[in-house]
Amino acid sequence: MSDEYEFLTLLRSRIVHDGARGLMDDVAVLPLGETRLVLTSDTIVEGVHYLPADPPADIGWKLAAVNLSDLAAKGARPVGCMLNYALSGDAAWDAAFLGGLHDMLDRHAMPLLGGDTVKMPAGSARSYSLTAMGESRGVVPSRAGAQAGDRLYVTGPVGDAGIGLDLARADPAASGPLVDAYRRPRPRLSEGMLLAPVVSAMMDLSDGLLIDAARMAQASQVAITIDHVPLSPALEKARGASTAVQMAAARAGDDYELLFTLPRGVAPPVRAIPIGHVSSGAGLTLMIDGAAMPLPERLGWEH
Amino acid sequence: MSDEYEFLTLLRSRIVHDGARGLMDDVAVLPLGETRLVLTSDTIVEGVHYLPADPPADIGWKLAAVNLSDLAAKGARPVGCMLNYALSGDAAWDAAFLGGLHDMLDRHAMPLLGGDTVKMPAGSARSYSLTAMGESRGVVPSRAGAQAGDRLYVTGPVGDAGIGLDLARADPAASGPLVDAYRRPRPRLSEGMLLAPVVSAMMDLSDGLLIDAARMAQASQVAITIDHVPLSPALEKARGASTAVQMAAARAGDDYELLFTLPRGVAPPVRAIPIGHVSSGAGLTLMIDGAAMPLPERLGWEH
Repeated sequence: MSDEYEFLTLLRSRIVHDGARGLMDDVAVLPLGETRLVLTSDTIVEGVHYLPADPPADIGWKLAAVNLSDLAAKGARPVGCMLNYALSGDAAWDAAFLGGLHDMLDRHAMPLLGGDTVKMPAGSARSYSLTAMGESRGVVPSRAGAQAGDRLYVTGPVGDAGIGLDLARADPAASGPLVDAYRRPRPRLSEGMLLAPVVSAMMDLSDGLLIDAARMAQASQVAITIDHVPLSPALEKARGASTAVQMAAARAGDDYELLFTLPRGVAPPVRAIPIGHVSSGAGLTLMIDGAAMPLPERLGWEH
Repeated sequence: MSDEYEFLTLLRSRIVHDGARGLMDDVAVLPLGETRLVLTSDTIVEGVHYLPADPPADIGWKLAAVNLSDLAAKGARPVGCMLNYALSGDAAWDAAFLGGLHDMLDRHAMPLLGGDTVKMPAGSARSYSLTAMGESRGVVPSRAGAQAGDRLYVTGPVGDAGIGLDLARADPAASGPLVDAYRRPRPRLSEGMLLAPVVSAMMDLSDGLLIDAARMAQASQVAITIDHVPLSPALEKARGASTAVQMAAARAGDDYELLFTLPRGVAPPVRAIPIGHVSSGAGLTLMIDGAAMPLPERLGWEH
């Protein structure tokens, strides 16, 4: 983390283009004629962002999904993407990866336009990058716009993917809705496009509700209180809904729901769960069953 | 090569968007409002595309240069790029890499807009990707437009970078114009913008004159004859100008000059060296000192 923090600090000092949003948002925004290009790029590394035993189709799917989720958080329409691919040396594995990638891309009419293919030296972890471009003709919400008095929402429950990762680690053949949530996340593109014109701030949940809400609070220079950790029926069935389970769900990553704020009195135009509010000040407060919880040292997944 | 060939064949079967140019060109072209976005992405891998002992500033420079060279070949104006970076674990190394990257980007007013930073597992080769975007409001030349009767040109001599790589391999502290040509290539952006409206075909020389000319011939469904292999004074001073030296220069990669064709009678609008001509038929012929040479089995650098 410290390495990455130093590197990003250095990068910020060199990056002066407004479109980079100071590297503080999920995306870059580049005005181009009458439109704005919304840009994001994610790299996934074997053994870091996915398990080596994960099915290749799911790895391809997820690479596409995490990038599309960044576009969803900005209400952008997908227009094209570029792939950087490290050949596996196993043609069937490569074909399955591409199949999963295209399954996800095709669901959102996202064309794959090109990229680069390389071979890694023997024994190296492989990594894959996707750079996704979207188009926005309206407001491109940032994570920095939350205002005191706003209400905080998510588009769905949290924690499923975290439990799914535990299940997949214990048994690569595990299946079911929780494993699916980890391996085949569904980016919220339609919701993002409907929400973008009305939200005060929006971002996707990639690293966990607590850490991502803390980032929104910091970027917006406000305080955020979360008073409800929404759990799915599948999660409650598997683990119950104890304080410890809620706390784990709030720290778990990879959910790819949208986290957003709306002025009080404005109803969300999509299905969403109210989970808290924004006030003046700074920092994050988590209430579970009405009691303020001490925050864990690690709020979520930092990578 | 066979792995990559299979993978690209599979990719082509899945990629139907016109902008991908069938994955047969250096770039993708995406119409967006009144403009066209020209997209390219290159990945460089430690020990494959650069020597682990290469200075980090030169590695960063080269990653920027190879991507900018693809835009140069299409006459595109740089508008932004995204970086995928594998942290080295050494903050000074990372800072030097970024310094070199920005030196090259700044020379062409190319803003770095964002990207992603990852840590690789211990012992893994690191890789870096840059995805570069350019803008074109005119013709975006492809490599497929060469016509029988056209003349063939390059914007500068070939082979310097190949000798520079040999020198750097033998002695990481080597310096001089040939090592510079390998480590700090200069993409031909101004030339590309002036050439784009008039050329019938254009591409950059990344893998070697012979292989890249053969690719142009194949894409254009024509025959190409090269009757002159232009050498720099530095190369001639170091190695002479024997047939073997000319042959090696024609097979060497990493030159990043532009290779282009013009109708007979049209003068190039930039400094360029005539090196051959296009005729009907197929394939590549190489003449050295007036004699047709047998082509080597490996025409250049295939990666």
